[in-house]
Amino acid sequence: MEAAGRLACPVLAVNESHAERAFNDRHGTGQSAIDGILRATNLLLAGHTLVVLGYGWTGRGVAQRARGAGASVVVCEVDPLRALEARMEGFEVLPALDAAARGDVFVTVTGSRDVLRREHFERMKDGAVLANAGHFDVEIALGDLRAMAGEVREVRPLVEAYRLPDGRRLHLLAGGRVVNLAAGEGHPAAVMDISFALQALGVLDLVTTRRAPGVHPLPPAIDAEVARLKLEALGVAIDEPTGEQLAYRSSWTAIGPL
Amino acid sequence: MEAAGRLACPVLAVNESHAERAFNDRHGTGQSAIDGILRATNLLLAGHTLVVLGYGWTGRGVAQRARGAGASVVVCEVDPLRALEARMEGFEVLPALDAAARGDVFVTVTGSRDVLRREHFERMKDGAVLANAGHFDVEIALGDLRAMAGEVREVRPLVEAYRLPDGRRLHLLAGGRVVNLAAGEGHPAAVMDISFALQALGVLDLVTTRRAPGVHPLPPAIDAEVARLKLEALGVAIDEPTGEQLAYRSSWTAIGPL
Amino acid sequence: MEAAGRLACPVLAVNESHAERAFNDRHGTGQSAIDGILRATNLLLAGHTLVVLGYGWTGRGVAQRARGAGASVVVCEVDPLRALEARMEGFEVLPALDAAARGDVFVTVTGSRDVLRREHFERMKDGAVLANAGHFDVEIALGDLRAMAGEVREVRPLVEAYRLPDGRRLHLLAGGRVVNLAAGEGHPAAVMDISFALQALGVLDLVTTRRAPGVHPLPPAIDAEVARLKLEALGVAIDEPTGEQLAYRSSWTAIGPL
Amino acid sequence: MEAAGRLACPVLAVNESHAERAFNDRHGTGQSAIDGILRATNLLLAGHTLVVLGYGWTGRGVAQRARGAGASVVVCEVDPLRALEARMEGFEVLPALDAAARGDVFVTVTGSRDVLRREHFERMKDGAVLANAGHFDVEIALGDLRAMAGEVREVRPLVEAYRLPDGRRLHLLAGGRVVNLAAGEGHPAAVMDISFALQALGVLDLVTTRRAPGVHPLPPAIDAEVARLKLEALGVAIDEPTGEQLAYRSSWTAIGPL
Repeated sequence: MEAAGRLACPVLAVNESHAERAFNDRHGTGQSAIDGILRATNLLLAGHTLVVLGYGWTGRGVAQRARGAGASVVVCEVDPLRALEARMEGFEVLPALDAAARGDVFVTVTGSRDVLRREHFERMKDGAVLANAGHFDVEIALGDLRAMAGEVREVRPLVEAYRLPDGRRLHLLAGGRVVNLAAGEGHPAAVMDISFALQALGVLDLVTTRRAPGVHPLPPAIDAEVARLKLEALGVAIDEPTGEQLAYRSSWTAIGPL
Repeated sequence: MEAAGRLACPVLAVNESHAERAFNDRHGTGQSAIDGILRATNLLLAGHTLVVLGYGWTGRGVAQRARGAGASVVVCEVDPLRALEARMEGFEVLPALDAAARGDVFVTVTGSRDVLRREHFERMKDGAVLANAGHFDVEIALGDLRAMAGEVREVRPLVEAYRLPDGRRLHLLAGGRVVNLAAGEGHPAAVMDISFALQALGVLDLVTTRRAPGVHPLPPAIDAEVARLKLEALGVAIDEPTGEQLAYRSSWTAIGPL
Repeated sequence: MEAAGRLACPVLAVNESHAERAFNDRHGTGQSAIDGILRATNLLLAGHTLVVLGYGWTGRGVAQRARGAGASVVVCEVDPLRALEARMEGFEVLPALDAAARGDVFVTVTGSRDVLRREHFERMKDGAVLANAGHFDVEIALGDLRAMAGEVREVRPLVEAYRLPDGRRLHLLAGGRVVNLAAGEGHPAAVMDISFALQALGVLDLVTTRRAPGVHPLPPAIDAEVARLKLEALGVAIDEPTGEQLAYRSSWTAIGPL
Repeated sequence: MEAAGRLACPVLAVNESHAERAFNDRHGTGQSAIDGILRATNLLLAGHTLVVLGYGWTGRGVAQRARGAGASVVVCEVDPLRALEARMEGFEVLPALDAAARGDVFVTVTGSRDVLRREHFERMKDGAVLANAGHFDVEIALGDLRAMAGEVREVRPLVEAYRLPDGRRLHLLAGGRVVNLAAGEGHPAAVMDISFALQALGVLDLVTTRRAPGVHPLPPAIDAEVARLKLEALGVAIDEPTGEQLAYRSSWTAIGPL
């Protein structure tokens, strides 16, 4: 909207703040997406292959938690920097067509559309599970799935089996809507408290600071303040830097003996 | 019963076979106990401390999955060998009284009774969660809890808050019964298939082999056969040893050039 | 220098580029710092407690690798946002004075000075190991250590035992200089190739782009290009977004059916 | 020897005791084999694929540490039960011929011979690294390697490059001898103390107990005593079971309310 000249008011990009990304996206969705998948399917993750499509903050959380649950994790990503990060974390990185033939469970977390589509469905194993934890219900191409399937049957609540002409069944969770909300309870309170605090302090900032129309980053001081409050709530104490350390940090002459 | 001379028939100790321990206890309960706790509470595990009491096969599974879900894990164990194994796996090992003050979530998996009792409840934090994934409902001393609490209130389905005189609330899950069955769906089918196969082949062995009354270990060939079938079902191929390798394995003279 | 008005030429902050941070700092130092410590000491990490002071990119790498090697890891950090991230990753987060009494091995990676000093040395266990993987040799207060020690003895190459009046010995590695360079071989070639490529393309950018004096971020296109080349070298293929996906990404009207 | 009727004295199988396996094999070799490989090569493990051949106690340790160092780990195993355990731990399990084409680093830990041989060498990538952490120098078929190579050159101390006719180079570490001893310093003292204590108490048992000639398991009480001493040395306290718990453990009537 800003690029199109249609944004008439100031906006704080709370969803892009570091605290929101690090806690809500990574740890919130990381846990709740896996939780939603397990509630819907009661599948065993150990010994199975879970494919994460998208390795942004949310994808990292899902990949980390899936590995932590015993799954063998494959990552698909179009951005080379993110793909290399995934590979360096020990995940196998594959093009989606190759991953399609390997996965037992697929989770889309790209923020894009039609990430899994006809060409991927054609290669999947019988029994594959399709879940979305990204955007709305557009990441899995439902139109393709419906067009390919001869029969659709609800085999458990929130689990529809699409039977393909060759007999394979693909299991779509929650109609392709975000699985952590649709099949689970959404993020735990211990994550939402961070998000709500960022939003509340963001609103306070907006009404006390006269900003121009447009998208502004959330002031980092708000991230820091929310983190400070959260540590306090968790009973975690940390240190303060000493005066000498503060001086050293901003100096370019006080280099130690080389 | 055998020790008491009361066992009149042959029994195969299926529950003590390696395959049962490694898959049902470790991976089955490991996943389903955490799953049950999350379904009951929707707590965030990342950033919280989970105390596992008991580090047998089941306890290892729970500890491993809790760590994989982002929790900081503390282990309590009375057996020194197991305690040392836990410590070498990077878990903090503490006496239960010390752990009581640290934990946000407690999981008993000892196969014993009264593992958490009055002296532990007295030290716990407000809001602590008590779950059992071991024996019946005897691992958490419910009598102590009831005697200490002024008020008991169901705050979510399967979550009872016991309010202590000083205002702290302890949250008991599923009345202290095994949380994976009571608050979840029990083990996934992909684990139970192994257990049922072990039992079926064990029964076949019992009716085809004339064994004396008493407890017998499950023949290791059954473990191997079930593992072979499961690998096949998972589409995992493995190698066979060569003839030379088989000969080398049982030789004590064919030591290579030292 | 820029803040002091003393920077007369354009500078690209290669060391702050995402690729440099994610690969050199995290994976390079993460591996090589632990490697340096093991070469110097041949200590077992499993079962011991390693304290990481500083949870920037380098600290994360060291903490991750130490945990991967079986250590129980404690993090100390003055920044609340970073401290909370560490806690959410399952690390114990403590003030340095508390960590001092717990650690078997200490690694400073703060970029600051005097991070470990007299007050910490006073609380450490007999046999504690002190290593620096951050700035020069100023992170461990060598003056304090020398002032406190009655005797200093080299017990292995690059390992000096400082004997305190009460009999405790603190083991300083490599004279407090960065342990991955001083006791190991520095970063593996498979990390330095990324760093050198960033620097080479940065120099090319500087000589072909007329930038004003001052510090400029490395253009993100260079990170992406280096990541692309590295993936190619590793034999890792990735997908390209489709035209429809590119359009969706920048649209604010094409929201899917809510 | 016992099977051949050639064992004239009693022998305690210290190497097969649980404590030896769990600590020396798993944590000792797990750390020291990776350490030896890094000292010999200074390779980056993150982003590379390490193939572990053999998933006994030692193989588990190597696989766990390699994953902890960021490698993508593939396991090869001939025993179906072990192969299934590896798969359930999230490792990819492949026949050795398939793994040969995938690996960047190979580690043999089978206790068998000719585990990597001509057919595997033929499929390996240029630059592959071959290390043995199992038996003597017979796990990698050196004869095959020499027969295939046109040129052998030491490219770093303890690293020989075997150049194959098609130009590929295979890097053999330490002449195929156990890499943790040959390229590293062997196990850390904090593991050897356990092994030596088991051996010392085993000798004491042999001279104080009149056992028949043959192989006897190490009495479990020795494992427990060594673990107890080691916990004490690490400063780790644990609980004792209560009298009621001891009674419950051996009872078959005192089942709690079902």
